[in-house]
Amino acid sequence: MKLLIINGPNLNLLGSREPNIYGSTGFDTYLEMLQGSYKSMVELVYFQSNVEGEIINKLHETNDKNKPKFDGIILNAGAYTHTSIAIADAIAAIETKVVEVHVSNVFAREEFRHVSFMSKNCVGSIIGFGLRSYDLAIDYFLK
Amino acid sequence: MKLLIINGPNLNLLGSREPNIYGSTGFDTYLEMLQGSYKSMVELVYFQSNVEGEIINKLHETNDKNKPKFDGIILNAGAYTHTSIAIADAIAAIETKVVEVHVSNVFAREEFRHVSFMSKNCVGSIIGFGLRSYDLAIDYFLK
Amino acid sequence: MKLLIINGPNLNLLGSREPNIYGSTGFDTYLEMLQGSYKSMVELVYFQSNVEGEIINKLHETNDKNKPKFDGIILNAGAYTHTSIAIADAIAAIETKVVEVHVSNVFAREEFRHVSFMSKNCVGSIIGFGLRSYDLAIDYFLK
Amino acid sequence: MKLLIINGPNLNLLGSREPNIYGSTGFDTYLEMLQGSYKSMVELVYFQSNVEGEIINKLHETNDKNKPKFDGIILNAGAYTHTSIAIADAIAAIETKVVEVHVSNVFAREEFRHVSFMSKNCVGSIIGFGLRSYDLAIDYFLK
Amino acid sequence: MKLLIINGPNLNLLGSREPNIYGSTGFDTYLEMLQGSYKSMVELVYFQSNVEGEIINKLHETNDKNKPKFDGIILNAGAYTHTSIAIADAIAAIETKVVEVHVSNVFAREEFRHVSFMSKNCVGSIIGFGLRSYDLAIDYFLK
Amino acid sequence: MKLLIINGPNLNLLGSREPNIYGSTGFDTYLEMLQGSYKSMVELVYFQSNVEGEIINKLHETNDKNKPKFDGIILNAGAYTHTSIAIADAIAAIETKVVEVHVSNVFAREEFRHVSFMSKNCVGSIIGFGLRSYDLAIDYFLK
Amino acid sequence: MKLLIINGPNLNLLGSREPNIYGSTGFDTYLEMLQGSYKSMVELVYFQSNVEGEIINKLHETNDKNKPKFDGIILNAGAYTHTSIAIADAIAAIETKVVEVHVSNVFAREEFRHVSFMSKNCVGSIIGFGLRSYDLAIDYFLK
Amino acid sequence: MKLLIINGPNLNLLGSREPNIYGSTGFDTYLEMLQGSYKSMVELVYFQSNVEGEIINKLHETNDKNKPKFDGIILNAGAYTHTSIAIADAIAAIETKVVEVHVSNVFAREEFRHVSFMSKNCVGSIIGFGLRSYDLAIDYFLK
Amino acid sequence: MKLLIINGPNLNLLGSREPNIYGSTGFDTYLEMLQGSYKSMVELVYFQSNVEGEIINKLHETNDKNKPKFDGIILNAGAYTHTSIAIADAIAAIETKVVEVHVSNVFAREEFRHVSFMSKNCVGSIIGFGLRSYDLAIDYFLK
Amino acid sequence: MKLLIINGPNLNLLGSREPNIYGSTGFDTYLEMLQGSYKSMVELVYFQSNVEGEIINKLHETNDKNKPKFDGIILNAGAYTHTSIAIADAIAAIETKVVEVHVSNVFAREEFRHVSFMSKNCVGSIIGFGLRSYDLAIDYFLK
Amino acid sequence: MKLLIINGPNLNLLGSREPNIYGSTGFDTYLEMLQGSYKSMVELVYFQSNVEGEIINKLHETNDKNKPKFDGIILNAGAYTHTSIAIADAIAAIETKVVEVHVSNVFAREEFRHVSFMSKNCVGSIIGFGLRSYDLAIDYFLK
Amino acid sequence: MKLLIINGPNLNLLGSREPNIYGSTGFDTYLEMLQGSYKSMVELVYFQSNVEGEIINKLHETNDKNKPKFDGIILNAGAYTHTSIAIADAIAAIETKVVEVHVSNVFAREEFRHVSFMSKNCVGSIIGFGLRSYDLAIDYFLK
Repeated sequence: MKLLIINGPNLNLLGSREPNIYGSTGFDTYLEMLQGSYKSMVELVYFQSNVEGEIINKLHETNDKNKPKFDGIILNAGAYTHTSIAIADAIAAIETKVVEVHVSNVFAREEFRHVSFMSKNCVGSIIGFGLRSYDLAIDYFLK
Repeated sequence: MKLLIINGPNLNLLGSREPNIYGSTGFDTYLEMLQGSYKSMVELVYFQSNVEGEIINKLHETNDKNKPKFDGIILNAGAYTHTSIAIADAIAAIETKVVEVHVSNVFAREEFRHVSFMSKNCVGSIIGFGLRSYDLAIDYFLK
Repeated sequence: MKLLIINGPNLNLLGSREPNIYGSTGFDTYLEMLQGSYKSMVELVYFQSNVEGEIINKLHETNDKNKPKFDGIILNAGAYTHTSIAIADAIAAIETKVVEVHVSNVFAREEFRHVSFMSKNCVGSIIGFGLRSYDLAIDYFLK
Repeated sequence: MKLLIINGPNLNLLGSREPNIYGSTGFDTYLEMLQGSYKSMVELVYFQSNVEGEIINKLHETNDKNKPKFDGIILNAGAYTHTSIAIADAIAAIETKVVEVHVSNVFAREEFRHVSFMSKNCVGSIIGFGLRSYDLAIDYFLK
Repeated sequence: MKLLIINGPNLNLLGSREPNIYGSTGFDTYLEMLQGSYKSMVELVYFQSNVEGEIINKLHETNDKNKPKFDGIILNAGAYTHTSIAIADAIAAIETKVVEVHVSNVFAREEFRHVSFMSKNCVGSIIGFGLRSYDLAIDYFLK
Repeated sequence: MKLLIINGPNLNLLGSREPNIYGSTGFDTYLEMLQGSYKSMVELVYFQSNVEGEIINKLHETNDKNKPKFDGIILNAGAYTHTSIAIADAIAAIETKVVEVHVSNVFAREEFRHVSFMSKNCVGSIIGFGLRSYDLAIDYFLK
Repeated sequence: MKLLIINGPNLNLLGSREPNIYGSTGFDTYLEMLQGSYKSMVELVYFQSNVEGEIINKLHETNDKNKPKFDGIILNAGAYTHTSIAIADAIAAIETKVVEVHVSNVFAREEFRHVSFMSKNCVGSIIGFGLRSYDLAIDYFLK
Repeated sequence: MKLLIINGPNLNLLGSREPNIYGSTGFDTYLEMLQGSYKSMVELVYFQSNVEGEIINKLHETNDKNKPKFDGIILNAGAYTHTSIAIADAIAAIETKVVEVHVSNVFAREEFRHVSFMSKNCVGSIIGFGLRSYDLAIDYFLK
Repeated sequence: MKLLIINGPNLNLLGSREPNIYGSTGFDTYLEMLQGSYKSMVELVYFQSNVEGEIINKLHETNDKNKPKFDGIILNAGAYTHTSIAIADAIAAIETKVVEVHVSNVFAREEFRHVSFMSKNCVGSIIGFGLRSYDLAIDYFLK
Repeated sequence: MKLLIINGPNLNLLGSREPNIYGSTGFDTYLEMLQGSYKSMVELVYFQSNVEGEIINKLHETNDKNKPKFDGIILNAGAYTHTSIAIADAIAAIETKVVEVHVSNVFAREEFRHVSFMSKNCVGSIIGFGLRSYDLAIDYFLK
Repeated sequence: MKLLIINGPNLNLLGSREPNIYGSTGFDTYLEMLQGSYKSMVELVYFQSNVEGEIINKLHETNDKNKPKFDGIILNAGAYTHTSIAIADAIAAIETKVVEVHVSNVFAREEFRHVSFMSKNCVGSIIGFGLRSYDLAIDYFLK
Repeated sequence: MKLLIINGPNLNLLGSREPNIYGSTGFDTYLEMLQGSYKSMVELVYFQSNVEGEIINKLHETNDKNKPKFDGIILNAGAYTHTSIAIADAIAAIETKVVEVHVSNVFAREEFRHVSFMSKNCVGSIIGFGLRSYDLAIDYFLK
């Protein structure tokens, strides 16, 4: 099984950015642990960008006959979650299933973070379990 | 590990109620499978009520010194998710951690289902994975 | 033909409660007259509760193979009309058809009474004809 | 007993217009059946117009000493239900009682159809029973 | 000086319609008195319609080279005041100045009567002085 | 007949302030002309203040047994029109009738000027006729 | 090919009405040019009314077996665009396809002109190209 | 004098629940002190429920000829304050006067706690004085 | 114990102003009774102003080292309750505790009276008990 | 004549993306046909990007003295239509005229697609004619 | 160069009022420092009032031929910033340019502080730099 | 002292773009003057991009141990000010302080420009002083 993890804006700063909200583990460290714990069961491919359009491009690639295929996509669109109809449209436009994840409990934060354009086009959403949200998304695809 | 699953209104009809939205497996059947697959790792206790106040009572019980303690609560408050400040207050009032789950992708349904009074008082939310949402909640408590 | 009449909160006080709005006939007296006028044509079963969840339970019962079946349900959900997504979901979850009735003209009262979560899941609504609203609902099922 | 039925815009197309919503019976056919079933008990007079002001004129006529009097008016104002304060004012300005009817369940359709300027000035409303809504309105006046 | 008075929907019922709000003087009686009191100073022409489009037609006529010219228009658009962009556009489209009048104090009534599409395209508005609102509008044109 | 004219904030600058909106005649000059044209028919008393509370005090004075009585009050509350519930309450608290006037057509300006807390407590409103709005208010009291 | 052009309220004044917004060509002149340039390819039939209900009647006629058929309708509903659910329902009720056109760029004008009840029931909308909007609508039907 | 104190959802946890908001005194302890300080002047009867419908039932009981009468009711409806039209209707339906109390200053908390369906049907409201709010309510009935 | 009572706009008219809402007792009379009933226990100082800024000044004075100190302030800000952020800020800026009182039940009146900028900065609010609201506020400070 | 066609996010997937909404023709195929049918009359230059800023860059280029000039721009900003003030500002900042086109009827889809930041800065909008919307835009520039 | 600094309500308490938000320097101390650092370059005149109308009066004075002229006004309207259309109108009515300043970052505080009636009538706004906001405003006038 | 100036979308067109709003000086020319006037006191580094994600990248760089450090950032996010939660999050995620500047008075323009996601995460905002807004921001960092 091969899964694509896409992280959106500012998630490259995980570990150093507002640690009281996002924790102090960097995503690289976490990803290594994650790959380690799922070993041969799952192959994880990671992509991060701060550019809305590049996230769309990466989603499109999974639909491209000449690019590698994935069994699922785990998407944390960061702040674009709340503003990007374009990424939401890209999710609807591709064939691979997408699971939405969030590190922090967005519903316990500012009101503008309570709205997600992504959710309705995703299989489901996993929100607020810290980095473990990614674990649970993998668990979903494994079952 | 001992977990309490609380299901709210109309979830006793799972399997027969609007199967295109909620699937055709009854919760009893599912619970048996669930308990089976986690065997000795987790003990699952199940409670369902259509009465808002009884759900509050059950949440309070977990705080009661004379009642059995749980390592976590998995709550699907059904339609009360969108209307009950009282249940949300009960979650904030007790010590045991609560994970919010939903069978259907509420964000792909009517707008009044997009709002949850529960979310901000829960550890996190798992939404839209069918009955597997409960699996993932158990996975969270196990990790 | 067998019809179930379900009355929601405060409707047990009909006759004594704000008679300028609801009239001065108690529901028991009315029910007797009603049963009398339809005699052998319709059998009326009556249920009233102030508890939201008990109304849901009663609606569920009509779907239960081990409970008596009804040819229709006449529901006056009282104030829960405007706040209960849970009752509305129960209506959608059962097979028996439901007709929504109201004694007073809710649209001529406070704005929060203009919204009904029930209506869209019911066959139709009969509003504002005093106790005669129930008569008309029976007429509908008879035709 | 003499009743005036007033139908508003597009209701002249009943039977051919969006039959999945409005059914396939034309109003003329229905009216004949209706008159037949109530025979000598009720005399039905029918008026339809797509012009808002003509509906107002017709309502005013019932107040005119030189015009025939009615024991009641059954009004389906069609789309004007949701936009015409002028028709609502006309209902308030005349003496004959008006019952509001709708063929389709307007609450199960677009949100702009959930608002009625008519309701608060009418005796009551009968909504969603197909053409039978008119039957029930007549029943109301007969009782 | 020649002035055109245009009255909108339901104003033909002035005197009989809700006299607690609109008074008990019919407009015909009033008009006679009005014409009497201004005698040779002003010639009053009166038009009333319940049809939105006929009010527009009448406003257009004042712009027509082949029709009599007026020194001003006094418009009480009745309930169309609150709903008709089309009449408001007609006011903007013609050359003759329009003064908006209302018999009742619309701001002391339902909230939907607080909005006027007419006002911004009129010279000014005179609201709430009973039938004397028309007097004041004539006074304006005379000065 | 004795009338009190009360002008609110910034109206002391009439004539110099934004003349394209308010005209170039100062209120003093205008008042003299006004008094001149009504000569012995009306005695005009003038009060202007930029302080909300002083306008309230002045309104209260008219209710005071030890202060001179007026046959009417003409109030242009300026910007307080849109924000002062306190002045509106004062109007309701006194016995003398108040007519609301505005120099500019407030409905053709910013949206926050479309709302008046004053209107519903006044006899009526005269809006948009330049300084002539005051003339018309006097005409009202004279008739 | 035979096309019906329907113009709504105030569009009879095109050429004289607010020429800075709508241009200075009258519709009659334009129609002649238009018919001229499409000669034998298209037969244009023109209808204008300021009465909402007459526009509905005209739309209904195209559905009438006894009336001439059209290959398409070009509708500029003028100000009714923003207020008439009744015309929108008529579009949905007939079989002939309707294209919505506007002379001015409604989105660059007042906010209440940004909403169109027509659009969702039309094939498409052509907005803001002056009278050339009609040309483009004809082009659509020709292709 | 005999007063009924009704506490709504989660108030059974007073003393242990979020003590920074609600203080650390349990209601039982407080009630004893309260009864002690008013001794023979007032007899206090206490009822608490987490079930909306049971609170309604208890309010109805005070209207029941066969049940003990009270000189007043002190109601802290907890979270139902903000969501229950049904309880508010019950207050309006009974004869005994109700005073609304709140322990915390609801206006200094989340916005959804600023709205009370109870208030308008109660004599008055006492909000934010901790448990002393109940004292003040008793003082009111005593005076 | 020394308490400062501050009354806002129009409260100087208590007793004569809208007695159906505010009762017919003047505040001076009431104050005398109040001082009488608490005799030596409390010294009451009274201040009333219709000027928003003077109320702020008076609140500031209590913070001034050279001015007499109070053990508490009882504030009825009248209509400024609903509009004055400045007074609310003054409450937050001083050290003396403030209790908010209202004579009428503001929640049973116009919607704009349901909002209080004061509440969240006060200890608590006492609303709707007529002049007795002041009694209860004194009771609070005494306990 | 030389025209620039700019397509925004996800429009590179036209033909494969949700064909029930967008049709099954790829844009490349369509562009070839389009260029073919206008032959020597129009030279079409095509640009597509999923990156908001690159669309802005491309719009700016048309203003650059060192870059080729265009006689017009046809812009389908895709989902950025509803969220990008930045692209709208770019349209206002350049000299070349822009026509807005949409393939689907955005007004018949989700409400967030009903708003366009682009429209008011464009010459006009052509919406809902499938790929033919581009044809009509070219027709506009040709006339 | 001569500048007028106007401070609105509660700013007389700077230094003692909520020092975590506003700092602990009193305005008098600061003003001295400020005057010191700009010495002969700028003459600073200071005015503070808690009365809305007095701030208006002071603004008007700068327009008065008999009063000293200023090269600019630095206005911190405090809480009136968010509620006073009257002060905003005064800014528009005078000739001297006004710069708006705020000590705290109003956008990081309650939502009702995000709105300023002042801003659109001022040259510009300087917000959130503590007392240094005044420095920057002086810098603006000096350049 | 070393400062980074970041300009967002369309600001590369300053000088040519809508000069009535933004002035006619290009930013390059201005920057040279600015650097000249602050000479050795400040080193200015300039970055402009129309791509939201590149602005985020540039903000992140200032947090990167391997990249040059700045004493402050001056950010004019252009239209992204009103739509980009992602840039606002980046500001919160880095250590260097950011000052928000705008050339035009955004509060005197369209309503959608009145909202800034940036402001609450910045030290402060300087709005509406033309290019001099940048001067003032430098002044802030220098003091």
